[in-house]
Amino acid sequence: MATHTLSELAAIAGARLVGDPGRTVDGTAALADAGERHVTFCVDASWADGLATTRAAAAVVPTGLRIARSDLAWLESDDPNAAFTKICALFATERPRPAPGVHPRASVSTVARLGVGVAIGELAVVGARAELGPNVVVHPGVVIGPDCRIGEGTELHANAVLYSGVQVGARCVVHSGAVLGADGFGFEPPKRLGEPWTKIPQSGTVVVEDDVEIGANTTIDRARFGVTRIGRGTKLDNLIHIAHNVEVGAGSMFAAQVGVAGSTRIGRSAMIGGQAGVGGHLVLGDGVRIGGQSGVIGEVPSGVDLFGTPARPKREVFKHYALIEKLPKLLARIAELETRLAALEGARSSEKKERSA
Amino acid sequence: MATHTLSELAAIAGARLVGDPGRTVDGTAALADAGERHVTFCVDASWADGLATTRAAAAVVPTGLRIARSDLAWLESDDPNAAFTKICALFATERPRPAPGVHPRASVSTVARLGVGVAIGELAVVGARAELGPNVVVHPGVVIGPDCRIGEGTELHANAVLYSGVQVGARCVVHSGAVLGADGFGFEPPKRLGEPWTKIPQSGTVVVEDDVEIGANTTIDRARFGVTRIGRGTKLDNLIHIAHNVEVGAGSMFAAQVGVAGSTRIGRSAMIGGQAGVGGHLVLGDGVRIGGQSGVIGEVPSGVDLFGTPARPKREVFKHYALIEKLPKLLARIAELETRLAALEGARSSEKKERSA
Amino acid sequence: MATHTLSELAAIAGARLVGDPGRTVDGTAALADAGERHVTFCVDASWADGLATTRAAAAVVPTGLRIARSDLAWLESDDPNAAFTKICALFATERPRPAPGVHPRASVSTVARLGVGVAIGELAVVGARAELGPNVVVHPGVVIGPDCRIGEGTELHANAVLYSGVQVGARCVVHSGAVLGADGFGFEPPKRLGEPWTKIPQSGTVVVEDDVEIGANTTIDRARFGVTRIGRGTKLDNLIHIAHNVEVGAGSMFAAQVGVAGSTRIGRSAMIGGQAGVGGHLVLGDGVRIGGQSGVIGEVPSGVDLFGTPARPKREVFKHYALIEKLPKLLARIAELETRLAALEGARSSEKKERSA
Repeated sequence: MATHTLSELAAIAGARLVGDPGRTVDGTAALADAGERHVTFCVDASWADGLATTRAAAAVVPTGLRIARSDLAWLESDDPNAAFTKICALFATERPRPAPGVHPRASVSTVARLGVGVAIGELAVVGARAELGPNVVVHPGVVIGPDCRIGEGTELHANAVLYSGVQVGARCVVHSGAVLGADGFGFEPPKRLGEPWTKIPQSGTVVVEDDVEIGANTTIDRARFGVTRIGRGTKLDNLIHIAHNVEVGAGSMFAAQVGVAGSTRIGRSAMIGGQAGVGGHLVLGDGVRIGGQSGVIGEVPSGVDLFGTPARPKREVFKHYALIEKLPKLLARIAELETRLAALEGARSSEKKERSA
Repeated sequence: MATHTLSELAAIAGARLVGDPGRTVDGTAALADAGERHVTFCVDASWADGLATTRAAAAVVPTGLRIARSDLAWLESDDPNAAFTKICALFATERPRPAPGVHPRASVSTVARLGVGVAIGELAVVGARAELGPNVVVHPGVVIGPDCRIGEGTELHANAVLYSGVQVGARCVVHSGAVLGADGFGFEPPKRLGEPWTKIPQSGTVVVEDDVEIGANTTIDRARFGVTRIGRGTKLDNLIHIAHNVEVGAGSMFAAQVGVAGSTRIGRSAMIGGQAGVGGHLVLGDGVRIGGQSGVIGEVPSGVDLFGTPARPKREVFKHYALIEKLPKLLARIAELETRLAALEGARSSEKKERSA
Repeated sequence: MATHTLSELAAIAGARLVGDPGRTVDGTAALADAGERHVTFCVDASWADGLATTRAAAAVVPTGLRIARSDLAWLESDDPNAAFTKICALFATERPRPAPGVHPRASVSTVARLGVGVAIGELAVVGARAELGPNVVVHPGVVIGPDCRIGEGTELHANAVLYSGVQVGARCVVHSGAVLGADGFGFEPPKRLGEPWTKIPQSGTVVVEDDVEIGANTTIDRARFGVTRIGRGTKLDNLIHIAHNVEVGAGSMFAAQVGVAGSTRIGRSAMIGGQAGVGGHLVLGDGVRIGGQSGVIGEVPSGVDLFGTPARPKREVFKHYALIEKLPKLLARIAELETRLAALEGARSSEKKERSA
């Protein structure tokens, strides 16, 4: 277990220490869970209640937020989240991984090519002509198909699957159960109802660029031809579906259970919320933001913020929600108008009668 | 094949038998599928049509629902569902599972600790220092990482994955392809567009309490620090996503494809419908009910019944739907008001002219 | 690498060639990606821009769509999609698959029965009494439980799982990570809040008929009793959930991330869009079309086209959306009516005063 003094933490995190610089801690924890050998953190004033009761030794706080407790040391920072991330990295123990070399119970093709430092766990499979760069880590049960190429330092977690010919860049993380390179979902419709669908050959592949993270049980299908591409530095959460021939730009971030249909192109730095769906054959620009559960069915220009199904500019959608809220009042206003108008009409008609009488 | 008399079934199910107590059956089936050696069931009057035509030997029915058929025996119960479940359990043949002991083709660390009666199937992997309680069943292809702890009698189905350090309680069932303990999806955003996201270390773990069932291909991520926790007796269906640091209370029930974002706390006995999504950093009380496909974006007090995206009290949502239905009529009423008002105004203005003439 | 002349392609695709019949190509590619030894295609006029700039040797186009480029040969067809699919099939190289026979690192029960030509990859598991028809292909890491039956020519991709007793027909494709036959999600609710849920035994199975394709990480649960059935020729995309006792008719097509709850029966040739959900115990007719992200909560007659949550006839839903768009104008019209009516009322009341004065 690593132990560090608060002054060490302050230096690493670029934080201002208020408290005993020599006090030591040996881990990180949330406000409510922390014990007396932990450092904790508070991102903003909405969490500040926890500061009064936490049992932590020290807390990372936004500059100016500390309270009157002398038993607690303070690490003040203008970016407490980033500061705490640096402290966490300090305490993060290397998670166990297969030892370098090929486990005797793994099954590696004699014509696969393994870089220096490659670690292949038990019961993993590496197919013919696959090329693994230096220091690639393959956990147990992973299946790497023939002709795959994997870049330096990439880690594939237990039971992930790469179909033949899939390419994954350097420093990627592929989590368990992810499937890269299954057939795109393409079938010619029957000419007549009841006749069979005809499978369209899916002869392309998947290319995952460098520094990508792919969540557990996420699926990325191979292209009909050409490639399905995940851009450099993009992060995909769990249970996401990326269909054939999709291209996702660099630096994008998709939350869990997102689905993107075939041949859609998404720009750089796109942010897509959980369970959102994007239709096929669309183009989404750079920096688009799609809210959770939205359904995108048309083109999206760069920088636009959408919400709802069908997805529309977020501001409009919430205006519509507010209007729907007003419908009961609106109904009442119409009923009142009808009553008042009928009264006027009645009055006029009796006046007329009077006059004509 | 087990064979039982109807009187045995009546006793086990706590049902009143009307018919030949010595008649034997050897299985259970739905109304339409049942043959002459099956017992079938009918939950309520909406299924009663099937009673006239079923070929079953006997039917479990709600008290009072039996019809005039003398070739069919009746098992009357005030809770036919529960009664039939007991009868099904009687006929349920033990599904095949690995034999106790370690299959010679499994790969179990020499420093793992296995309780009595543990069964490890072929090509399963058990990592260093993992502890498996008595009678744990590990199906083929399961990967249990180092330092995991699994309680007595828990069953892990083929190709499930536990990352290192994950804890699963007693009498749990983890279905195939479920992934417990993959990294939480946490990244510091870039300071400037185009710069890389920084991975936040995910150094916590996952704790699954006793008597939990986890569906096929469901993913439960490890915590940033501390634990992601699934409470005792909770049942999760297939393809569910539970993010880092989420806590799900005891006795909850989530249907398939639900997603819960990071750090959200859900109370006891929560019921969440299929494909619903719950945002991050929220608190949901005990006994909440969230309708299928709903999207929860705010706090939810205990006992509340929500629906829609954004999720709102179910009654309100359906009131809004009804109002939207009325919009065409509402438009017509407004148009009529405009016509009548214009007529009045026109009349007044011509009268004025007359008078001033 | 296969090489074909354009006249060969024209004959295979049933297309009319305009250009050099002896010119050779050796692959297929999209308009933008094609090089000088590729044939490309254009489905309709919306793609026609690409024809001006593609570097391909030849293009499949709808009859009448070719442009004035003499360096490009044309393959005119009334159904360019189907024509191109035939050409793709010609160039599709057989993807690598396990060699016929049982890999020495596979684990096949001595009482399993394998047809001629069966290929079992490394680290695959075949349980007791399982029967595999001729030419079945089992990729690495697949787990086939005891008593399963698999028809001729079916291919199971890496790490797919069949629980015991599951039946898959002939010529099916099951992609990686798919799980067939996990327990249906059935529990008797507790009598009192806080008491445990009681598991309902799931003693049925799954039957997948001939010519079905099942996407990566899709889950199909076994029936409570009887069968969960996927009809002949149906195609399921990735990450789909099919609950216990569901029946899907022949020739249906479900896009990714669809969920169908328990005991629902869906007719033939149903088309269900991505992320749609269908409630439990429903009947959907033949040829229904359900839009992406829709939520079906009631019966659906044959041939109906639904959209939205709750799902309704598509035309109505879009009419409602249009009405909601009009709400701001509607509000303005009501406000105007109120102003005008108040003016009339005011005028009348001052006239009255005048008269009574």
